[in-house]
Amino acid sequence: VKIAVLGTGMVGRSLSSRLGELGHDVVIGTRDPQATLDRPHTDAEGDTSFADWQASHPDVRLQTFAEAAAHGDVVVNAVAGAVSAAVLEEAGASNLAGKVLLDISNPLDFSAGMPPTLFVKDSDSLAERLQRAFPQTRVVKSLNTLNAYLMVNPKELGVESSVFVSGDDAAAKAVVVELLTSFGHTDVIDLGDLSTARGPEMLLPLWLRLWGALGTPMFNIKVVR
Amino acid sequence: VKIAVLGTGMVGRSLSSRLGELGHDVVIGTRDPQATLDRPHTDAEGDTSFADWQASHPDVRLQTFAEAAAHGDVVVNAVAGAVSAAVLEEAGASNLAGKVLLDISNPLDFSAGMPPTLFVKDSDSLAERLQRAFPQTRVVKSLNTLNAYLMVNPKELGVESSVFVSGDDAAAKAVVVELLTSFGHTDVIDLGDLSTARGPEMLLPLWLRLWGALGTPMFNIKVVR
Repeated sequence: VKIAVLGTGMVGRSLSSRLGELGHDVVIGTRDPQATLDRPHTDAEGDTSFADWQASHPDVRLQTFAEAAAHGDVVVNAVAGAVSAAVLEEAGASNLAGKVLLDISNPLDFSAGMPPTLFVKDSDSLAERLQRAFPQTRVVKSLNTLNAYLMVNPKELGVESSVFVSGDDAAAKAVVVELLTSFGHTDVIDLGDLSTARGPEMLLPLWLRLWGALGTPMFNIKVVR
Repeated sequence: VKIAVLGTGMVGRSLSSRLGELGHDVVIGTRDPQATLDRPHTDAEGDTSFADWQASHPDVRLQTFAEAAAHGDVVVNAVAGAVSAAVLEEAGASNLAGKVLLDISNPLDFSAGMPPTLFVKDSDSLAERLQRAFPQTRVVKSLNTLNAYLMVNPKELGVESSVFVSGDDAAAKAVVVELLTSFGHTDVIDLGDLSTARGPEMLLPLWLRLWGALGTPMFNIKVVR
């Protein structure tokens, strides 16, 4: 499958790397490719520079958001929630039209410090906002409830855990479920239409406190029934 | 332990029944005991009348909120979130002073129809509101993330699942953890101070959609790590 991953941070890299490994034709999108290659570190955590990362992932091409979106039949929104709408705007509504948009972002607001709050919630969700802004695109929410590594390597936990999908387009959801299954997810729960994305997005406050209590982000929830 | 359970609905009954079974001295509290006994059904679901329920649970005494709170060393808030503050007001700050208040309520707002939204969230929680209103009481949030039956019978799922505790008073949390353990909970996760209750309270939107997707409320989440 031709896939665009928007975002060159840890989440975008983790997704791109795994999708490339699975044989997909992956383009990773950024605002300004040269600036991304020139940057010594991507963030405050001091991750490997993108240039170094790409040297070990030559199959993943780096292009602009618009070029990446034009390439992908599936587009993954792997940028921060706060900039998602602007990045998709830059990717271009025409490049996104008809495409499956897998939205894995979270509407985190860090403006009042830690822990972050949610800038949309309860009677709306980030996924629904993006769907309203890009009505020709088929938005599917998933994977926002896991750490970047576990998103694409769920079996590393050793015990089955759950992942959710929400979306208005059944065919688009089926495309996403197939990707999730290829990552190793064996308990994919279809919550229903895109408004159900409010549920997984509102899990984040608990997720963040579990990270604090457990001292590691390497966990996931399993819906036991 | 002398325990007061405030609320005669399904949740209050489930808790009272199990606590009585475990040998505790349980009083179940209501606004007007005679009115509760006279009511043919407690709610729209057509549950057994309280009078019939009590006939099969003679060890659980029915008293007013204030009498129940005066009796309990541990007081369980098992009324709806929307009326919790008013019910505790009626129970009386002096009757609640020094007591452990196990708050299992959820701040659900049904005023705009289904699914409900949350009337407090994100930068505050119902548990914190109650703590601020009753500063002499030691509020512990727990059990709001499970169905009433599974709260007190978690082993019925057949597989271990998780439950959370949040609170500012370590001794009060220890009292609650002991009760949870006696119910059969084996994975009790201490999230931290009472502000961490925002996490489990904000799980409700996902919980409600899981109920819809799974067609049953007989599930719980396990934090796999």
